[in-house]
Amino acid sequence: MLRGEVQGNGNEKINMLGKIQDAKKGQIAFLANPKYEQFIYTTQASAVIVKKDFQARKEISATLILVDDAYSSFTLLLEEYHRAISFQKSGIEEPSFIGKDSSVGKNIYRGAFSYIGSKVKIGDNVKIYPHVFVGDNVVIGNNTILHPNVKLYADTKIGSNCVIHSGTVIGSDGFGFAPQEDGSYKTIPQLGNVIIEDNVAIGANTVIDCATLFGDSTIIRQGVKLDNLIQVAHNVEIGKNTVIAAQSGISGSSKVGENNMIGGQVGIAGHLVIANNTGIGAQAGIGKSIKEEGQRIIGSPAFDVKEYFKAYAVFKRLPDLNDRLRELEKKVKELNSITERHEVEGDE
Amino acid sequence: MLRGEVQGNGNEKINMLGKIQDAKKGQIAFLANPKYEQFIYTTQASAVIVKKDFQARKEISATLILVDDAYSSFTLLLEEYHRAISFQKSGIEEPSFIGKDSSVGKNIYRGAFSYIGSKVKIGDNVKIYPHVFVGDNVVIGNNTILHPNVKLYADTKIGSNCVIHSGTVIGSDGFGFAPQEDGSYKTIPQLGNVIIEDNVAIGANTVIDCATLFGDSTIIRQGVKLDNLIQVAHNVEIGKNTVIAAQSGISGSSKVGENNMIGGQVGIAGHLVIANNTGIGAQAGIGKSIKEEGQRIIGSPAFDVKEYFKAYAVFKRLPDLNDRLRELEKKVKELNSITERHEVEGDE
Amino acid sequence: MLRGEVQGNGNEKINMLGKIQDAKKGQIAFLANPKYEQFIYTTQASAVIVKKDFQARKEISATLILVDDAYSSFTLLLEEYHRAISFQKSGIEEPSFIGKDSSVGKNIYRGAFSYIGSKVKIGDNVKIYPHVFVGDNVVIGNNTILHPNVKLYADTKIGSNCVIHSGTVIGSDGFGFAPQEDGSYKTIPQLGNVIIEDNVAIGANTVIDCATLFGDSTIIRQGVKLDNLIQVAHNVEIGKNTVIAAQSGISGSSKVGENNMIGGQVGIAGHLVIANNTGIGAQAGIGKSIKEEGQRIIGSPAFDVKEYFKAYAVFKRLPDLNDRLRELEKKVKELNSITERHEVEGDE
Repeated sequence: MLRGEVQGNGNEKINMLGKIQDAKKGQIAFLANPKYEQFIYTTQASAVIVKKDFQARKEISATLILVDDAYSSFTLLLEEYHRAISFQKSGIEEPSFIGKDSSVGKNIYRGAFSYIGSKVKIGDNVKIYPHVFVGDNVVIGNNTILHPNVKLYADTKIGSNCVIHSGTVIGSDGFGFAPQEDGSYKTIPQLGNVIIEDNVAIGANTVIDCATLFGDSTIIRQGVKLDNLIQVAHNVEIGKNTVIAAQSGISGSSKVGENNMIGGQVGIAGHLVIANNTGIGAQAGIGKSIKEEGQRIIGSPAFDVKEYFKAYAVFKRLPDLNDRLRELEKKVKELNSITERHEVEGDE
Repeated sequence: MLRGEVQGNGNEKINMLGKIQDAKKGQIAFLANPKYEQFIYTTQASAVIVKKDFQARKEISATLILVDDAYSSFTLLLEEYHRAISFQKSGIEEPSFIGKDSSVGKNIYRGAFSYIGSKVKIGDNVKIYPHVFVGDNVVIGNNTILHPNVKLYADTKIGSNCVIHSGTVIGSDGFGFAPQEDGSYKTIPQLGNVIIEDNVAIGANTVIDCATLFGDSTIIRQGVKLDNLIQVAHNVEIGKNTVIAAQSGISGSSKVGENNMIGGQVGIAGHLVIANNTGIGAQAGIGKSIKEEGQRIIGSPAFDVKEYFKAYAVFKRLPDLNDRLRELEKKVKELNSITERHEVEGDE
Repeated sequence: MLRGEVQGNGNEKINMLGKIQDAKKGQIAFLANPKYEQFIYTTQASAVIVKKDFQARKEISATLILVDDAYSSFTLLLEEYHRAISFQKSGIEEPSFIGKDSSVGKNIYRGAFSYIGSKVKIGDNVKIYPHVFVGDNVVIGNNTILHPNVKLYADTKIGSNCVIHSGTVIGSDGFGFAPQEDGSYKTIPQLGNVIIEDNVAIGANTVIDCATLFGDSTIIRQGVKLDNLIQVAHNVEIGKNTVIAAQSGISGSSKVGENNMIGGQVGIAGHLVIANNTGIGAQAGIGKSIKEEGQRIIGSPAFDVKEYFKAYAVFKRLPDLNDRLRELEKKVKELNSITERHEVEGDE
């Protein structure tokens, strides 16, 4: 599978993956970082994946598998292993609930206490863990995994090969209230939905609100990766392959471009457009649209990363600057009075 | 219902709401923003709501409904539509759980896997979606909606006409720990409860902790609107009609006034009092009480919005300021030595 | 139990705890803060706990209990009361689910709709509230309480005497994605687990991700207290007795020391080491390791608290500083030209 060359016992039985420092017999490990080279001579792993050109300086008891890129090869194994594990679950555990006129594909897992509403369409190989809620009219593509307690409000559309983690809520009402004369607020009904395209991963306890108007959607484009505890407000659109770290929030109607990398605890105000390939540093606050592609910004409000850190370096010394300014003012005042005296003297 | 004047076919059958750009036959749309005027001539909507004084520049095939305020009228329709939808759910889905000595009103919806504890009192027309947990002794007023997976700890009181979204937790323990001599912490039992008054809306995955002492309450006053992923700590009180955006947090025992507007990702420290009508900008940090009403503040720690942005504009140019200061210091030093020379020369 | 001396009727029946201001007959209150002394003369509480050396200035109707530290004694009572309440729940409510080869200890509570997977080991006196999900191979120690809707992914280990609040997710996938040449990302399988040691308290809707590699763990050491809505990324370790306030986030692979006190909405970047006894102020951003113990820091990026507030005080006056700098530049320019004239004149 790894297309590597085997050096040593090619019949070692491997049943698990491990780290080179503490792997045990029966496990396979990898060596990519030279810092860890020492461990290859002492590891109890049955096999180790190493780079083709690796030159052993001592005897190695483990079977070696020589490959082009040890890390990538190990990752490949991890994936296979993961796939094996995650495809274990199947069948229907009881009690579980499914409403009228709903259809499910082949090889489905429906955990106990999972709830599927009416007129729902679910593809093949979908895993619906315990306590998942799937509202009416929801559509879910093939191979998608909904971890325990994911909540999909009515009319949500989820693509294929998506993974959504526990506690995440999709399709809750957008935050829309019209102020009344008496100081109270009237709820603006939220009638749109959420569309999640293919290959999207969403962490735990994240919230994605539905769009306001009927026919409108909050849209998460294909390949987007969202971390935990993220807020995505109504009518937001997040472009292809954009990655957003934990606890960031995007306010209503903002459009985030493709291939953005957004750090943790970032806040993006409403009704903005963020260009493709923008990098936004952790805790940044974005108050206006980013029009030029490829920028790296941070701060609140955010501007160029390098400029920010230069300014911040001076910020830290502001009390000193203030003292120097005061000192200068004193000196200039003195100079002034001396010069004035001279002028007067010169006039004499 | 809209008290508008009908221009065209008054018998058009309308079964849905749409946007003027892409509405189809059978839908009703509205035109409020002149930017969209072009679409009224081409829309396939069966009817369009427009302002009374609208002057068509071309022929319009849709039936027009002339009103005072097109947007408000459309919103009214949305509300009606929403009400119709949200009142669809009723009855009891099985399996569901209800403990001893609990009473429920008329026309209730209790979703599958919903859990109601003992001695609970629930009003009329309440909707309890699947996976909702209602602890012992909880009281819920009429017409309140608990979306899938809302969790109400024991002794919580919820008013009438409230809407609480998925994953929100109400009544969890406040964060109270007493430091011990060995560096560990002892848990301070949290024995109070949470009171939510009427007409409160709470988003998804928000948390409201109970008060510490028995008989005390964390209180959310009538008309308050809380967004998603908000933290409300023990013994907090939030005043009437205050609106708080997503991911903000209010620390223990702080009292937030009425009609505040608080942006996203704001942090308010503990034991503070925030005056009525305060506006707090996104990502602000509030470290001391706000005594004067009607202020607009931002920053961490927060101060007047206009002053903040003026200061921040200079912050961005701090490296330049620093250079100018250094330059001045050099010049003043030179001037100083010249002047000293002059003084000496003058003395000669 | 309080080892206090009783002054007055030693046979008062107490069935509840209350506050001195509004306690009623049958309740016990305490007086620790002299500010509240006035209430001891009017309280209807049946008994009041006071400090040994308390000197009444008027007549008191309540029975007094004289102790060394009134607040601590009251807290002790609170704890007893709490224990009494929280040990009420026991037995198995149906429907509930338990998989193959799982074992549970004595005196367990398993709420309705709770889900326990296969090969799970649960200790004595554990409380598993409704809608809790316990994945395969999970281990839970004695006396631990899982509030409604806690989600434990497969392989999680929880110690004894832990309390975890509603909606908290433990063991979800770390946020790991390998960029591909076409701009998309490949998911890096997350195969480690989470270990929570003894006496840990975790708030509501918090998320703790599992470690990436098989055999690795995200670790929360004994005595740690985490508030609500906190993000703990893959491979993080949090040291003994560290306390973290709501909405803070710790990025992948960072190691937080022992006895840290971390405020709300703090962000800690990845791969850092934070020394023991560090105090981190609310909303701080930590971008590099903290090596020296006992520091108090704030700001983003964070530095010494006192220095930060000094710098921030000047920040608020930056427009003024800028004006003064400009003024000085003008004056120095004038001085310069005068001095040059003098020099020229002097040369004549």
